[in-house]
Amino acid sequence: MSRISKEVINQAKQAQEAARIMAGVPTATKNQALLKIAEELEKSMVEILAVNEKEVLRGQEKGLAGVLLERLKLTEQKIRGMAEGLRKLAYLEDPIGEVPKMWRRPNGLQIGQIRVPLGVIGIIYESRPNVTVDAAGLCLKAGNAVILRGGSEAFDTNQTLHQKITVALSEAGLPVHAVQLIQTVDREAVEVLLGLNEYLDVLIPRGGPALIKRVLDEARVPVIQTGAGNCHIYVDSAADLDMALKIVFNAKTDYVSVCNAAESLLVHQMIAAEFLPQLYDLFQANGVQLRGCNRSLKLVSGIFPADKTDWGKEYLDYIMSVKIVDSIEEAVKHINTYGTGHSEAIVTDNYNQAWRFLQEVDSAAVYVNASTRFTDGGQFGLGAEIGISTQKLHARGPMGLKELTTTKYIILGQGQIRE
Amino acid sequence: MSRISKEVINQAKQAQEAARIMAGVPTATKNQALLKIAEELEKSMVEILAVNEKEVLRGQEKGLAGVLLERLKLTEQKIRGMAEGLRKLAYLEDPIGEVPKMWRRPNGLQIGQIRVPLGVIGIIYESRPNVTVDAAGLCLKAGNAVILRGGSEAFDTNQTLHQKITVALSEAGLPVHAVQLIQTVDREAVEVLLGLNEYLDVLIPRGGPALIKRVLDEARVPVIQTGAGNCHIYVDSAADLDMALKIVFNAKTDYVSVCNAAESLLVHQMIAAEFLPQLYDLFQANGVQLRGCNRSLKLVSGIFPADKTDWGKEYLDYIMSVKIVDSIEEAVKHINTYGTGHSEAIVTDNYNQAWRFLQEVDSAAVYVNASTRFTDGGQFGLGAEIGISTQKLHARGPMGLKELTTTKYIILGQGQIRE
Repeated sequence: MSRISKEVINQAKQAQEAARIMAGVPTATKNQALLKIAEELEKSMVEILAVNEKEVLRGQEKGLAGVLLERLKLTEQKIRGMAEGLRKLAYLEDPIGEVPKMWRRPNGLQIGQIRVPLGVIGIIYESRPNVTVDAAGLCLKAGNAVILRGGSEAFDTNQTLHQKITVALSEAGLPVHAVQLIQTVDREAVEVLLGLNEYLDVLIPRGGPALIKRVLDEARVPVIQTGAGNCHIYVDSAADLDMALKIVFNAKTDYVSVCNAAESLLVHQMIAAEFLPQLYDLFQANGVQLRGCNRSLKLVSGIFPADKTDWGKEYLDYIMSVKIVDSIEEAVKHINTYGTGHSEAIVTDNYNQAWRFLQEVDSAAVYVNASTRFTDGGQFGLGAEIGISTQKLHARGPMGLKELTTTKYIILGQGQIRE
Repeated sequence: MSRISKEVINQAKQAQEAARIMAGVPTATKNQALLKIAEELEKSMVEILAVNEKEVLRGQEKGLAGVLLERLKLTEQKIRGMAEGLRKLAYLEDPIGEVPKMWRRPNGLQIGQIRVPLGVIGIIYESRPNVTVDAAGLCLKAGNAVILRGGSEAFDTNQTLHQKITVALSEAGLPVHAVQLIQTVDREAVEVLLGLNEYLDVLIPRGGPALIKRVLDEARVPVIQTGAGNCHIYVDSAADLDMALKIVFNAKTDYVSVCNAAESLLVHQMIAAEFLPQLYDLFQANGVQLRGCNRSLKLVSGIFPADKTDWGKEYLDYIMSVKIVDSIEEAVKHINTYGTGHSEAIVTDNYNQAWRFLQEVDSAAVYVNASTRFTDGGQFGLGAEIGISTQKLHARGPMGLKELTTTKYIILGQGQIRE
């Protein structure tokens, strides 16, 4: 066994032991730890920023892309944001110990389901160092142990943040192995993690499509898939066109690089001639490119022709694909074919069309007359989230504290046996 | 691409189309289909039994083990049992369409979670042909499409059962591709199924450890693990020993070949000298073998010595391992080390020990003063089940209709955009 294998397996074992302890830790202690991490981060502001600055410089020298540098770079404001996030987490209700249901059987057995931590969570992520703190906080509040594997370009920053977390855990009397960071940039460590189904209860990849695909393809640990959002808006024949204009504009342009931004527009043929020129003018004035089907090109000459790959694309940019459809059936079918199961909206004043869309679109979040930008734990009122799940097992949509837990059955008897 | 690949992928595509239709089918139609399958099975009793008899004979000629032949063999009573099961399913509440939670946000958005089918479920199972009918019924009632892959030794029987299901689906006006059976015994078909994450939403293996391990190791489709039950009973120092005797005897002997049968006994050292001889006599009189730790051998000479492999064994036989422990800590640690996370019980009259056991044992079902034999959908009052999940994601414990569903968020707006 390689040295890296040994180290990662050892970390996983320590995480499993820590998880057993964490499962029984009182809420007050967990909250205190969160507040202490926040304090440590703010106290160590200068140190963290210095380490991060050096790392950003090295990234520049290595020719790291601008977007990645932007994500990597910490500021005083970003660190205060992390601390604030932890303090908010401390105020959220602890999901552990909730008994959502309990009932009595004819034989007197009292049976309930109690919410318990998942155990050991592995998180594999890319350049943003704030994930180190956010993910640690969420896993900790839900009573789990977590093993973090950040991007190599953020290795030093993550190490420093992790040191502060460790100090705080220790001060709060929690096991320091409850939050661990992989201690090497070697990719072998990821390989090892993906196979550790004996110790890890779930893996959550956070990052681009390549990372997620690799984890899904290779992991023997159960994976929760987050991320890709090729979100659609369907403007129905019965849409209020002013509302449609506002919703499409907001969903596309409010924040183009996030997963709940709209990428593709479907327009009913009955209103296309009226709606598309208005949208085109609005987009034109704001630097948004439209790539459309042949019918749309005939209506508005400035629309670029879309090729077949456009329907499946998550642009994360000031670009939107547009297709004219003959019916809601066609719209739903298009979405269920090309969508990523994230967020889709219909704009309509027709009750039956709204109902059909809600029923038939197979996505984590389905909207009537609202922007897809609301798919977010905070916006839904669920609190901080670790990502948006686009799969159907265990968690679908924003994954918050509850999604980082499981349940077990508890059965209280008085000597019952099965006859 | 091989012919088998093509066929299986084609079936999966048809299943996905059928699933879209099934998701919107009214409960009454699904119930009617269940009743019609029951009717078809009873009407075709003679035909089914004839096909099955030939298959059992062929199995005997091939030298199939007695246990497998027993599982393969259908009787009039077993077929009536399948039909009865379907009728009971028809009377269970439809989980689809339930909105367990809905709330309003400050901006007026009304957000809810609605229960929807999972989509396409793959079930890979071994010799019992009744799984063909039970699994089809459960998947259908929960609004899913299902692809069934039974054991090769039951191929003809499964084909015949599946034909009856198809006739009933068609009569009820449901898509016949909602319940499909893999049309070959070639193992390549399983390989193909395991990789079809584009079409299948979940795979549920039902069978022995080898099958489950293969599916877990090779599947790219999310898997729900069911099965292995190395269940423990811990007889605490504060136990009512008469109650303990009854519970241990029931949990071990009521039905030895099922996953909720107890396999391992932990006895607190303070009561071991009193309890073990009584248990030994009772077991002796009923042909149950005890395999014990060194300390237990000193107390009762008839106990066989256990070797280290015994602690992890699921005997599924009239054999039980026994270990004397010094404390509840030791008992819990032993269970969390050697158990399979299925069902464990403590027998105690001490409130604190009961509470600790419930908190610290990391299994799907944790009992105080009752037999582990109750871990079962019917016994819990949850209705028919497709298996007992021993994993933590999505479903833990008996998996019934609800566990064959997922949720999606529906968001009702009046033009809200994110500012």
